[in-house]
Amino acid sequence: MHPRLSVDEYTKGILAGDRNTLSRAITLTESRLQEDKILAAAILQNVLPYTGNALRIGITGVPGVGKSTFIEVLGKHITSLGKRVAVLAIDPSSKKSGGSILGDKTRMEKLAHDPMAFIRPSATGLSLGGVARSTRESMLLCEAAGYEVILIETVGVGQSETLVKGMTDFFLLLMLAGAGDELQGMKKGITEMADMIAINKCDGDNKAAAQKAMAAFRNALHLFPKPESGFSNPVVCCSASEESGIAEIWEHVQRFHEITSENDFFIKNRQLQSLEWMQDSVRQMLEENFYDHPDIKRKLTAVRKAVTKGELLPVAAAQQLINLFVKRTI
Amino acid sequence: MHPRLSVDEYTKGILAGDRNTLSRAITLTESRLQEDKILAAAILQNVLPYTGNALRIGITGVPGVGKSTFIEVLGKHITSLGKRVAVLAIDPSSKKSGGSILGDKTRMEKLAHDPMAFIRPSATGLSLGGVARSTRESMLLCEAAGYEVILIETVGVGQSETLVKGMTDFFLLLMLAGAGDELQGMKKGITEMADMIAINKCDGDNKAAAQKAMAAFRNALHLFPKPESGFSNPVVCCSASEESGIAEIWEHVQRFHEITSENDFFIKNRQLQSLEWMQDSVRQMLEENFYDHPDIKRKLTAVRKAVTKGELLPVAAAQQLINLFVKRTI
Repeated sequence: MHPRLSVDEYTKGILAGDRNTLSRAITLTESRLQEDKILAAAILQNVLPYTGNALRIGITGVPGVGKSTFIEVLGKHITSLGKRVAVLAIDPSSKKSGGSILGDKTRMEKLAHDPMAFIRPSATGLSLGGVARSTRESMLLCEAAGYEVILIETVGVGQSETLVKGMTDFFLLLMLAGAGDELQGMKKGITEMADMIAINKCDGDNKAAAQKAMAAFRNALHLFPKPESGFSNPVVCCSASEESGIAEIWEHVQRFHEITSENDFFIKNRQLQSLEWMQDSVRQMLEENFYDHPDIKRKLTAVRKAVTKGELLPVAAAQQLINLFVKRTI
Repeated sequence: MHPRLSVDEYTKGILAGDRNTLSRAITLTESRLQEDKILAAAILQNVLPYTGNALRIGITGVPGVGKSTFIEVLGKHITSLGKRVAVLAIDPSSKKSGGSILGDKTRMEKLAHDPMAFIRPSATGLSLGGVARSTRESMLLCEAAGYEVILIETVGVGQSETLVKGMTDFFLLLMLAGAGDELQGMKKGITEMADMIAINKCDGDNKAAAQKAMAAFRNALHLFPKPESGFSNPVVCCSASEESGIAEIWEHVQRFHEITSENDFFIKNRQLQSLEWMQDSVRQMLEENFYDHPDIKRKLTAVRKAVTKGELLPVAAAQQLINLFVKRTI
């Protein structure tokens, strides 16, 4: 890691759109060191007035759906319209494999060399909560550096979509045609979260199947209640490799932005997300303080054992521990 | 409310299987009064060694699926086999309407008059968390009073099934045949939670449709990964009004119990549930203590406002509040 800059140097560099300073500030948000955390917090508070202006888009889909190619093509489309785009990722699997999504930069070579684009792989070695925090903060730093569209990639398994949904304005689900693929490996309930479904790889021999899947999803979505956003979730086909359907998808995103800006859903959703972020942070910090407390650490194993054996009521066990923790607080 | 008994009187009455004492003890678990809570905790700790021996079954399904009739018929079947059964409910809607599921006792008249059965409607006027806590504690009290099967009814909307799933050994989903009914109003992901699906109202003109739905669900479940329990989730048809298919359902439950007792899933699941109950209680108590703290109360509105306006980073806001709360702890 480079030597740190001063808070002022980071702030000025980011606001000037300097990619190197931006990168180094993002690295701070990924650090576990207390001094880096304090530095990151100060930078974030400084740039806060310059954040919030980007359109934040979450993109999910199972491995193999073609997310990287799709994001590269969508990103190129957006920069061709004169907008600066940043690509981030939340990838819980990066912890295990060491290789994250986006990690293989060659997969997005064209976009990586586009001066209007900034690509940052998912942080490795952090917990999912840590990655989420770092991605949220990185997003704000990218906004302060002048990026107008943020694409956040995730995989369609586990809790990561809920996290991405909670930090983006628009949530796009990429799918493949094919019996059962909709269910296998895909977290249930995810179609409900999506603002739009795109069936990818609608090309060649796969075209008919993709169009059939599109029709099936359109039918299925009629069964769901109308989204709060006021925007009726479209289901479309696209082919990232043939670059077809991409402009249409971007138009839908634009229309979503217009509709939700008019009906105030956009701003209300942002405010709600901020409050939830605060609430989640409070909960996380409370639990960290609790489970790190020396008295709790000393007692926890014995208490868990008594609970597991059925000797102590779980709620009574919790109360005992809480009494230890709170006695010096109130 | 009756005047309270002593902890010893409650304990002895419950262990002797006295229904009136059991009822009054359950009322204590529903109380918001601190003295009642302390009393309930003492009784629970006393009877704890006599709990855990019942088979705990959660039953869910959308309104109209025929849950009450089904539970009455299943309950009668169980008592006819010489087993004592208790019926409880978690019903978030009871708060609003005043009339809870199970509230209309006439709906289960036969079971209500069965000396081998005990029916207790969902508590009213409590939060969902409060109902969950009270139902968990009521379940233990019923077990101590000698009930060998606990049926916990809930409705297939909102968070209540997750709660019921987290406190039962077996989770039964009741469904109806009919296009789209599977999705409308039903929380997504619920089929994944179920250990068994029963298509009810498989009678008269509805029989063919019910059997078709059964086949469709059997096909769909093949797409899901094999359950951890080692028990392949059956999909069956039944008719509560014609009392058909009920014995078969009970046999499946028995087989689940055998299989999961042999492969240790049963006991491991119970232990996990106890630890999760403890962890949830810790989290809930931490948050209660936090948000009730006078310093936090004084600051919270202003902080939330600054966060909503985008003047303060949510995670920085959380840190500020946590510092107020924890400063006297460590």
